[in-house]
Amino acid sequence: MVFSIVEHFRLSPWASEKITEYEKLFKYFGIKPFTEVLSKLAQITEPHMLMRRGIVFGHRDFEKVIEALKERKRFAILTGLMPSGKMHFGHKMVIDQVIYYQKLGAEIFIVIADAEAYAVRRLDRKEIINTAINEYIANYLALGLETHRLHVYFQTNYKREYYRLIQLFSRKVTMAELKAIYGEDLEPGKIMAIFTQLADILHPELPEFGGFKTVLVPVGADQDPHLRLARDVADRYSELGFERPAATYHKLMTGLDGGKMSSSRPESYIALTDPPELASRKILRSLTGGRATAREQRELGGQPEKCPVFEMLSYHLIEDDNELMRIYDECKSGRLLCGECKLRTREMLVKFLEKHQERLEKVKDLAKQIVKQPNF
Amino acid sequence: MVFSIVEHFRLSPWASEKITEYEKLFKYFGIKPFTEVLSKLAQITEPHMLMRRGIVFGHRDFEKVIEALKERKRFAILTGLMPSGKMHFGHKMVIDQVIYYQKLGAEIFIVIADAEAYAVRRLDRKEIINTAINEYIANYLALGLETHRLHVYFQTNYKREYYRLIQLFSRKVTMAELKAIYGEDLEPGKIMAIFTQLADILHPELPEFGGFKTVLVPVGADQDPHLRLARDVADRYSELGFERPAATYHKLMTGLDGGKMSSSRPESYIALTDPPELASRKILRSLTGGRATAREQRELGGQPEKCPVFEMLSYHLIEDDNELMRIYDECKSGRLLCGECKLRTREMLVKFLEKHQERLEKVKDLAKQIVKQPNF
Repeated sequence: MVFSIVEHFRLSPWASEKITEYEKLFKYFGIKPFTEVLSKLAQITEPHMLMRRGIVFGHRDFEKVIEALKERKRFAILTGLMPSGKMHFGHKMVIDQVIYYQKLGAEIFIVIADAEAYAVRRLDRKEIINTAINEYIANYLALGLETHRLHVYFQTNYKREYYRLIQLFSRKVTMAELKAIYGEDLEPGKIMAIFTQLADILHPELPEFGGFKTVLVPVGADQDPHLRLARDVADRYSELGFERPAATYHKLMTGLDGGKMSSSRPESYIALTDPPELASRKILRSLTGGRATAREQRELGGQPEKCPVFEMLSYHLIEDDNELMRIYDECKSGRLLCGECKLRTREMLVKFLEKHQERLEKVKDLAKQIVKQPNF
Repeated sequence: MVFSIVEHFRLSPWASEKITEYEKLFKYFGIKPFTEVLSKLAQITEPHMLMRRGIVFGHRDFEKVIEALKERKRFAILTGLMPSGKMHFGHKMVIDQVIYYQKLGAEIFIVIADAEAYAVRRLDRKEIINTAINEYIANYLALGLETHRLHVYFQTNYKREYYRLIQLFSRKVTMAELKAIYGEDLEPGKIMAIFTQLADILHPELPEFGGFKTVLVPVGADQDPHLRLARDVADRYSELGFERPAATYHKLMTGLDGGKMSSSRPESYIALTDPPELASRKILRSLTGGRATAREQRELGGQPEKCPVFEMLSYHLIEDDNELMRIYDECKSGRLLCGECKLRTREMLVKFLEKHQERLEKVKDLAKQIVKQPNF
């Protein structure tokens, strides 16, 4: 079952305009197809639906995670959040994976990128801290993140060994290298953010933070440059016991308006705290993979592989692979038109949001308690 | 008395080739002559001999220190050390001033620039830590630095608020600005070192480190760019309560070979741990301000203002201003020739070193105890 659905989806979304981007990652940057490791993972445990559906499409060294799972060795997940704007469904994808690994026994490290938010994005400090806790961390908990084996920290409020890494790493990375990865326009805030992120990715390997020899960083496909640099730096600091972190790569969600899903355009996303009525309106107005006319669609079938509404279903709202495939087939065959599909989706979405927002109210205090806030 | 000797020296050393450099600091960079504040300081307490002799020649906002002394308000001194090579008499000048301020009630912060030593000077970590404690801090204690009201820290092993400053400051400093001060060739290690130094200079103002509103940084004349940047950054972060740190500037010692006194050329300096016989040989071989022949010197007089041996006397070995002026006059008038002067200097030097090295043995364990060492 698992494999059929991957095969099913694999061909379709890669037939979209994004194909070249993802294939480039395999071809030029050495990311490997996740399908390679999926069956091995399936022998140990049920893969996450994002994996089964090829949305998590690539990896580096995921074999280490499989080995850790198989041999019941400790492993850690590192993820980060940019504390700006609202948490939307594009952000949710990472946390869903994190929660999946937490249930499998992983230790979770979540970095709040507040130093970067302040120095690069130039946001207000108080606003940053408030957003991180009340918008992001609270939503994470409401989604099911547990507080055991969980470390949430602000970049500006952590242990000294973390900062030591930032300082030490600066010796073995050159400006030429940074410019090749991040572009010519490197202001001090950006440079500081890059080194801070290197420490984020690598610090769980230090004894002071648990000494994890297997660290996995699940990221969106656009984050690979950071990972490549972190893996290189790990090699350069093998004297400190560093090994290369593993990574998985997932596809990025398409915005409801067909562009990038972005915090800066509210019409492109649905936030986890959007009132259900607002979310309803957004989904009903969403672009779809439908044809110009109903007649045409009945004849040619819809195009779920380029449909933001279908993404909401496959990335988030439908857990059952069979159910999802039924909708996929209905759409493809032209039996299901967009209007009807949107109504179904809206129903699932509203149900999800109502439940989620109920849980959110209950964990807001907890969110404040589990993170040590910087005092300025 | 105090003033006559300043007047006396003021004209002479500035008649040397260094004159333009120091005058430039007054003219273009707004450093003020220390003579301006010397009399006010003398009304409160005896100025240090380096001040009385015009060796501490410039300042910024020293009035704040005078006010603190007058009104018995708390104030802090910040100084730093580069943990490489041997501690020599050129380094001693700063610590002599620090000890002077400590006796006047100042809280002392000493930063061990180990992050910079590692990332910019590319020294070995273990060697850096060893040098910092056994070479520098031990010598400081032997010179009379007391352990009360003293904070000695490694840049890689300090409190989180210090690191927060490094991160936050990166927002309001541009690369263009850094390049104007430090040159075009700015590698990441250097950039990190600059921001770390900004945190060094400004952190005693934070409540977490004592909330000192008067912080003085006594430095060599070459260190002004750092101070200027730190003062600018303080202005930009007035929202965090920062005020401009004060600074004093002292002349740099001339090497025994006439060049710069530098750790990389052992013939240019006498180390505080040089065996007395070695120190003797070095002083006897030193360049002097003497004339080509004894006869010429008897006629024209010597040139103490450009004499490394006279510097050893005036910067370090003779505390009594009258005694120093006698030697100055004897030299100037041609009555004292270099051979005789070197023998006298050697005697004082050997006496000093023997006593110092005896004290050094006694404080070596203490040096290890007062600094928290980084574990990697």
